Amino acid sequence: MTVKRKIINDPVYGFITINHPLLFSIIAHPYYQRLRRIHQMALAYLVYPGAVHTRLHHSLGAYHLMCMAVNELKNKGIAITDEEEIAVKAAILLHDVGHGAFSHALENHILQGVHHETLSLEIMHSINKELKGQLDTTIAIFTNNYPKKFLHQLISGQLDVDRMDYLTRDSFFTGVSEGVIGYDRILKMLTVHNGELMVEEKGIYSIEKFLVARRQMYWQVYLHKTVVAAETMLVNILKRVKELSKDGIEDLKTFGAIDYFLYEYTGKMNEEVLQKFCELDDTDFTFAIKKWSKHNDFVLSSLCKRLLNRQLYKIQLQHEPFSEEKLDKLKYKAMQQFPIKKSLIDYFVLTGTTINTMYKTEDERINILFKDGTVKDISAIDNPLIHHTIAAPIKKFYICSLIP
Amino acid sequence: MTVKRKIINDPVYGFITINHPLLFSIIAHPYYQRLRRIHQMALAYLVYPGAVHTRLHHSLGAYHLMCMAVNELKNKGIAITDEEEIAVKAAILLHDVGHGAFSHALENHILQGVHHETLSLEIMHSINKELKGQLDTTIAIFTNNYPKKFLHQLISGQLDVDRMDYLTRDSFFTGVSEGVIGYDRILKMLTVHNGELMVEEKGIYSIEKFLVARRQMYWQVYLHKTVVAAETMLVNILKRVKELSKDGIEDLKTFGAIDYFLYEYTGKMNEEVLQKFCELDDTDFTFAIKKWSKHNDFVLSSLCKRLLNRQLYKIQLQHEPFSEEKLDKLKYKAMQQFPIKKSLIDYFVLTGTTINTMYKTEDERINILFKDGTVKDISAIDNPLIHHTIAAPIKKFYICSLIP
Amino acid sequence: MTVKRKIINDPVYGFITINHPLLFSIIAHPYYQRLRRIHQMALAYLVYPGAVHTRLHHSLGAYHLMCMAVNELKNKGIAITDEEEIAVKAAILLHDVGHGAFSHALENHILQGVHHETLSLEIMHSINKELKGQLDTTIAIFTNNYPKKFLHQLISGQLDVDRMDYLTRDSFFTGVSEGVIGYDRILKMLTVHNGELMVEEKGIYSIEKFLVARRQMYWQVYLHKTVVAAETMLVNILKRVKELSKDGIEDLKTFGAIDYFLYEYTGKMNEEVLQKFCELDDTDFTFAIKKWSKHNDFVLSSLCKRLLNRQLYKIQLQHEPFSEEKLDKLKYKAMQQFPIKKSLIDYFVLTGTTINTMYKTEDERINILFKDGTVKDISAIDNPLIHHTIAAPIKKFYICSLIP
Amino acid sequence: MTVKRKIINDPVYGFITINHPLLFSIIAHPYYQRLRRIHQMALAYLVYPGAVHTRLHHSLGAYHLMCMAVNELKNKGIAITDEEEIAVKAAILLHDVGHGAFSHALENHILQGVHHETLSLEIMHSINKELKGQLDTTIAIFTNNYPKKFLHQLISGQLDVDRMDYLTRDSFFTGVSEGVIGYDRILKMLTVHNGELMVEEKGIYSIEKFLVARRQMYWQVYLHKTVVAAETMLVNILKRVKELSKDGIEDLKTFGAIDYFLYEYTGKMNEEVLQKFCELDDTDFTFAIKKWSKHNDFVLSSLCKRLLNRQLYKIQLQHEPFSEEKLDKLKYKAMQQFPIKKSLIDYFVLTGTTINTMYKTEDERINILFKDGTVKDISAIDNPLIHHTIAAPIKKFYICSLIP
Repeated sequence: MTVKRKIINDPVYGFITINHPLLFSIIAHPYYQRLRRIHQMALAYLVYPGAVHTRLHHSLGAYHLMCMAVNELKNKGIAITDEEEIAVKAAILLHDVGHGAFSHALENHILQGVHHETLSLEIMHSINKELKGQLDTTIAIFTNNYPKKFLHQLISGQLDVDRMDYLTRDSFFTGVSEGVIGYDRILKMLTVHNGELMVEEKGIYSIEKFLVARRQMYWQVYLHKTVVAAETMLVNILKRVKELSKDGIEDLKTFGAIDYFLYEYTGKMNEEVLQKFCELDDTDFTFAIKKWSKHNDFVLSSLCKRLLNRQLYKIQLQHEPFSEEKLDKLKYKAMQQFPIKKSLIDYFVLTGTTINTMYKTEDERINILFKDGTVKDISAIDNPLIHHTIAAPIKKFYICSLIP
Repeated sequence: MTVKRKIINDPVYGFITINHPLLFSIIAHPYYQRLRRIHQMALAYLVYPGAVHTRLHHSLGAYHLMCMAVNELKNKGIAITDEEEIAVKAAILLHDVGHGAFSHALENHILQGVHHETLSLEIMHSINKELKGQLDTTIAIFTNNYPKKFLHQLISGQLDVDRMDYLTRDSFFTGVSEGVIGYDRILKMLTVHNGELMVEEKGIYSIEKFLVARRQMYWQVYLHKTVVAAETMLVNILKRVKELSKDGIEDLKTFGAIDYFLYEYTGKMNEEVLQKFCELDDTDFTFAIKKWSKHNDFVLSSLCKRLLNRQLYKIQLQHEPFSEEKLDKLKYKAMQQFPIKKSLIDYFVLTGTTINTMYKTEDERINILFKDGTVKDISAIDNPLIHHTIAAPIKKFYICSLIP
Repeated sequence: MTVKRKIINDPVYGFITINHPLLFSIIAHPYYQRLRRIHQMALAYLVYPGAVHTRLHHSLGAYHLMCMAVNELKNKGIAITDEEEIAVKAAILLHDVGHGAFSHALENHILQGVHHETLSLEIMHSINKELKGQLDTTIAIFTNNYPKKFLHQLISGQLDVDRMDYLTRDSFFTGVSEGVIGYDRILKMLTVHNGELMVEEKGIYSIEKFLVARRQMYWQVYLHKTVVAAETMLVNILKRVKELSKDGIEDLKTFGAIDYFLYEYTGKMNEEVLQKFCELDDTDFTFAIKKWSKHNDFVLSSLCKRLLNRQLYKIQLQHEPFSEEKLDKLKYKAMQQFPIKKSLIDYFVLTGTTINTMYKTEDERINILFKDGTVKDISAIDNPLIHHTIAAPIKKFYICSLIP
Repeated sequence: MTVKRKIINDPVYGFITINHPLLFSIIAHPYYQRLRRIHQMALAYLVYPGAVHTRLHHSLGAYHLMCMAVNELKNKGIAITDEEEIAVKAAILLHDVGHGAFSHALENHILQGVHHETLSLEIMHSINKELKGQLDTTIAIFTNNYPKKFLHQLISGQLDVDRMDYLTRDSFFTGVSEGVIGYDRILKMLTVHNGELMVEEKGIYSIEKFLVARRQMYWQVYLHKTVVAAETMLVNILKRVKELSKDGIEDLKTFGAIDYFLYEYTGKMNEEVLQKFCELDDTDFTFAIKKWSKHNDFVLSSLCKRLLNRQLYKIQLQHEPFSEEKLDKLKYKAMQQFPIKKSLIDYFVLTGTTINTMYKTEDERINILFKDGTVKDISAIDNPLIHHTIAAPIKKFYICSLIP
């Protein structure tokens, strides 16, 4: 009997192979296919025009790295059963299935306070029901309730295949070479010791590079000031829509899935809400913004038109907060330029903060296994590149404005 | 005085530099920014998940190759004035600005019978008005009314930078290495002889490779059977919508820009129609398909749901037409499976043709300039790889069906 | 028990893994290590400065592709025992071990008329003795005396991993992108049918690309006119040395391994000759040429100095033989420029031929296995790119001269 | 008049263009061509089989980066005359022309105490004489006696194109992705301020990456323990030869250029010594080692055979010196294994140190030019990755032994 096998071209890794019925079922599921319509990097394509890859593509990539990781560990004699292998592969395929439209950019703005991992788990349960329990082990691993902890660590940890893929893929599609990591070497250096995922001593430099690349991608890409400006604009658009909706929604409705979450959703989570959530994707928001760009509210239509045509906030980033004085001066200027009430000026001039944490030493560790059997954290090795000062979270303040 | 200069990261070429006010004006124009929301390869991402790059990205890429080409030619002593240089760069930025939603896939289905180049020209005229004639030379070159013919050939010819970029970019994002061409070597080998664009003798193998890569991209990607199936499905969805609209459009309307073209447009072209056309992008269609997937017409909702969830037509391709008998058998089967009238069965079982022409020797030539001054077409050199048999158009027949 | 495992960085494929004691024994053998001192592409580095990679590197690369091929075939259910797997890997490591200094360039000039494959086999026998028969299966496969023919075909056939590696590696190190093939896709498409190695239907375009790339590498690299000129010069140096040696060898001797083959070797092959042959590498020849560049024979020292300093023959290539007249004219000129006897003028002006056969349809085939079970040669498919005219050998004539 | 122009394929950068008579003269010079026969990375190919690239290749690569740098600076309005442009390009072509056989590995062992830069300068003077002063400006720039300091800094400084090329090239040919830098982005960010070479603020992360990559290449490649072991072996071979030569050189002589430096050279530098030095390359040493591998001195022949066959010292690296006790124990063991006198045991068991300095803050700086006009060193920016602790030199101790 020949096994059905599908090969997918991936510009990043070459070829991705799918070869198990459970994996085919997951990929064919509408909840999974929906990830095709969600950009992996939200609005970053406004700065990096190549960064239009999707959540689905990232999910397939992380799956590919998981195949490599499992293969390496098995070659090193780590026991992984066939059932565990499929389960951990299914888990990585589904790890981000709970991401909503515009990914992180809207994470707290569609379903307030619900983290995408929580939603991923809800969706896994829902699919598991359809698949009559075939995802039981997958869910146990995903929720870290499976005895072999290292399987969970491969999905979620300081050195999981999720991060390895998104750094690799995001640096590939943005063209930012500073974010390139040696994923293949890291994978070759993975091992399991006392049930935990570790890296062999020879992999120290690859890990250092991984952490430095991550830091650089944060500052150069994920927290790029223009990306921050665009995402702030998107959030303000939704804020204005909700504000306006108090006075009636007739001219705001899109007649798409988005309407429910903007005008009806009360904060509860149930099967029906989940299903509606899975109908949403980037398209709904972009369509809405195009529609609202013709709305007669000056604030709403201005912000929408500007986001569509890439006329974004001017933005400054710095280590200290901006003075009230500076803010007031800009607001005063804006008041003179735009035909708006004072109470709305915050849509045109505003401040906020972004945070980048490269490596939190307190809560998670990247363990290095030395040849003599000792285990040390990457920041505790001789002559480390990764210091505590680097590991600390870095907060930056921004000021955005639309004054020409 | 320092010139404003912007550098854009491109995963394909590294960095693209924009350094002229006219080019900034073009890129900032909403008609240009709209290209961000149009996939370069329509639905090909359903087969190649990486192929989500946009028309805007292709346009920037072709512009980059144009910069390289102009640079090379000038280094070889070919006279190109500053004005011509900017004009030809502006022309390549705008060469595809007339593409509509889903690019080639819907080329003849939104504005029947209007080619995207015609629309590009209309849009250039429109922007030229705003820019007070700054695009006059650009338009002369684009329409081949400029004395230096080679400038037009760089934009549109057998070996233009448009093709060089789309082959390079499409093979990059699909991950299909068979389509990789040596664009940098071809550009180094370009020259002008008797006012025409030519390739130096040393570039013969690079040209051969270019033509073979093109052939391979056609069969492996552009006319990939699953891509053909998806695009056929999309076209059939629009066909069904128009059919249904004869009985009223209330439950078909999206309240977006698409409605005009589906239910009102009468075939005329004027400034207003052009403006409406420029409001359209992929989003409108995807949003509509999501909406129609809940329509109560079985044919429409089935096709929409299937396209969204990648449950595409099963398709066969061959060199001969399919027999009536085979078609009838499949239709008969389909009739038994689906609750539809006989008159609608063509939405579920259908045939058609695709054509690939690698290199039409009759109408355009790739001229090779030999060291001794003679000029020959690439198919007329000694020991050619490119034969007339290859140059002939290849027609393939397909049959699509939805029977499980 | 943990298996010893070694990972080698390869710029072409990433990482190559060695994980079996027999493979370690082979790689550690001085006869194998000697391949480090033999350029894979002889003197091609005089045109392509990056092309300094070694026979050892190619051998490791071909081994890596063999690992991938074996893995793919096993995944498809083709039976390959552990013993066969190691044997076929050992065979590919050793397939080129019989190459002498400057590889193909001197193939018929050190041991006249002995093909490098014959020498590879002799060396395998020699190592097999040391290893007490561990290479028995390896030798059976290498000599095509093993029942599973496809194992031999993986090592030596129209589509063996040897060719796949050398095309990939040579195009990588020369930087000639025209030679890039999609080795990973070809490997994914390999299968075994009726005991023979075949390619699945979906791999047709990859095979076409492979054959076209080969053709292009021949014309652009292997038979690059300057490479031909350099290799002709090398051969003429040895010819002159042998000529001079008839009058005494004192001032020709290098006191290295080369002396035996230049001045003593009588054409016999035995264990001792083999051992001496394995002491030779590129170093011996380059050292000798440096030495001879100071010899008082004008012809010898001129050619040696020129080869060292890259002052090569001027060369012309064409499809027809050069006329006697042209040759005589050049010789006449050369006679006036150089202080040499007429009988020696052939060292300064000479003609010859090179041959490139892309794909000999008569003797070997690349079989395509269609989904319906039929098997066709790649040149017999519908709408083939590879024609008989292409498959025919192409002979070119060259003329070399040293006239300034 | 058309300018002669030559294009060289480079696997790293694509194409390198040479287009000036002075540059052609330099490249054609035997002193330059000799760099083809010197490995860029000495014996590193024993660990990284791809690392067989040459000094000539590196020199061409650095030249290519210089072309890009000069182009960028000119585009930014920095004044560089045509004469300066050619001079700085000539200087970078010649910057390493003084490297001897096996580059750094033998830097202090052929001409004791003469640095390769001193020799480069001597050779430049010598070629300048032949070229009748065409290199005057080149030499002024190379020796930092030219008013525009930034031209010298492009050749020799913390951020010169030399380093940029060797990091890029060495990581390319070794396949060590940790060493990849974003050279193209760094070049785009270069500027000149107050006559000094600087980097624009936007380039901070690229510089950080450059410094981290350098650190990683040192530990992972340049000071890889096996590379250190091989180079130690090579140095010991020469030491033993000199020792033996006190008792007569008849059976040590190679009859090549090496003999002079091993047995005659007295430490003086003059035109004749320089010329002899330029006759040396890797070939002479490898040939000698092959010869000495049959010498009847046990120490010499053992070391030579082992180096040829890659049976290297076993080596350990650590941060603290090795104890006398450990050393003595190993020596004692070695004494029992090898038939040698106690006075020679240091050839079989020995210790030493290696040093890696990533970035010496005290003596050289990488200046960052901020938008507000301030200038800061990269280690003095906000939230720096590069700390003083990293900048400090790191010394490691090794112990080498041949005990099985």
